[in-house]
Amino acid sequence: MSAAALTDTSKLCVHTITTKPWSVEEAIDKYAEAGIGGITVWRQWLEGRDIGAVGEKARASGLEMVSLCRGGFFPAATQAGRDEAIEDNRLAIREAAELGAPMVVLVCGAVPGQALEESRKQIADGIAAVLPLAEEHDVRLAIEPLHPVYADDRSAINTMASANAVCDQLDHPLVGIAADVYHIWWDPDLEEQIRITGEKGRLFGFHVCDWMTPTADLLNDRGLMGEGCIDIRGIRAMVEAAGFSGFNEVEVFSDRWWAEDQDHFLTEIKKAYLAHT
Amino acid sequence: MSAAALTDTSKLCVHTITTKPWSVEEAIDKYAEAGIGGITVWRQWLEGRDIGAVGEKARASGLEMVSLCRGGFFPAATQAGRDEAIEDNRLAIREAAELGAPMVVLVCGAVPGQALEESRKQIADGIAAVLPLAEEHDVRLAIEPLHPVYADDRSAINTMASANAVCDQLDHPLVGIAADVYHIWWDPDLEEQIRITGEKGRLFGFHVCDWMTPTADLLNDRGLMGEGCIDIRGIRAMVEAAGFSGFNEVEVFSDRWWAEDQDHFLTEIKKAYLAHT
Repeated sequence: MSAAALTDTSKLCVHTITTKPWSVEEAIDKYAEAGIGGITVWRQWLEGRDIGAVGEKARASGLEMVSLCRGGFFPAATQAGRDEAIEDNRLAIREAAELGAPMVVLVCGAVPGQALEESRKQIADGIAAVLPLAEEHDVRLAIEPLHPVYADDRSAINTMASANAVCDQLDHPLVGIAADVYHIWWDPDLEEQIRITGEKGRLFGFHVCDWMTPTADLLNDRGLMGEGCIDIRGIRAMVEAAGFSGFNEVEVFSDRWWAEDQDHFLTEIKKAYLAHT
Repeated sequence: MSAAALTDTSKLCVHTITTKPWSVEEAIDKYAEAGIGGITVWRQWLEGRDIGAVGEKARASGLEMVSLCRGGFFPAATQAGRDEAIEDNRLAIREAAELGAPMVVLVCGAVPGQALEESRKQIADGIAAVLPLAEEHDVRLAIEPLHPVYADDRSAINTMASANAVCDQLDHPLVGIAADVYHIWWDPDLEEQIRITGEKGRLFGFHVCDWMTPTADLLNDRGLMGEGCIDIRGIRAMVEAAGFSGFNEVEVFSDRWWAEDQDHFLTEIKKAYLAHT
């Protein structure tokens, strides 16, 4: 399965963390100048900012606000910890509404040594607890399955099937999935799970980057598209066949790229987007 | 699901790589002296040895020869590469027979950038090609699903379900699965897949160690049982419920433990085995 090459950057969205050295204002200016279509803002970029004004600036610059990253981290060893997580997710939903972002991406969380089944239950409970506020602001919640290498302390939801199971359980139009090639590319059941996700109307987001061989650092050695082993275009074909027509979001955590001149990096992102996404 | 604590070391098997600083002769002497029941020999430990004599020494010391590690790495970009892998696996089968090991463990292989489906096909073809020799020597071949973090260059078979699919395809009593908690602990479908594996009479091996948080090195920072987040006893309960009654094989790759006095380490292995396996 493959897709036709992309011919322009109108559906390209960049995450502010991808160009980590830039502030959100710089990122907006640079992305807009580069003809990029959308932006996903990480919450750290909003600290000390008038959030509504950031959203206004992005829209005035011609960028679509794609999503706010990130909520989640629902599981905790204590009820107090779980309550705190729920409050923080409510804050994220309010921030998304203020920013004008239609979606919050959820990195769902895990507690080392706590059974994954228990963490999954706490995740479902946590999402259910914040759903009324999400409804009030019409903000979607996108569960992002994380690669199983993060099952110990970042997410107990590690496959599309597992994310679909939580979505089935909550059965709510505002709860869906953000599919990131980095986390799911290895899954032998990928095409079928993406198909189901689309069929159920819950494929909310699509993130791209690449898997480096070797991977020097498990968090911050992601590759730019084409640098690694993922058949990104093949997976884009799957999400498009499943009805997805949203942005292709470039989310690269890379100490190597962050050390480069970011204007040069943005040029490389555009090239890699057209050549390998 | 949990299992009763183990009360002796008769079903404890140690892999020679676990105590990497020791030669195979030292390992045999030390394991036997410690009352350990079995040994799995890695092929590097046999270099320059009379393989039959190593097997004799182990048996004379009261150790059961559990398996030979490792064959596999079938996929390659060229036919010549694949033929070479098949020859090397034939050699591993002959070595196992000489050693008196009833089983060869397969780390199946992957080629960065080659579609995992293609690698899985090459794996199945490779196993099929060596099966006549395995039959001749009555040596079992145990596919070890590897954690998805190794999907780029070590194995295209990353779940019990995927290993079961290859076993179904080959449908041969000498082809089964070695289940290693390190690789499969995160799998939401684990209990069911272990059940199926047992039901089909193909649960050939069970490996234990632990997953460290954080993991400092993806290859050589495995934990001793109890040091990490895996519910090892819970998984042992699953394999025993599936009919498994073989050895519990301790396979720890750890720069940290290899730097310690290995006699002390072996004492800690026994303690961890009784307390956490």
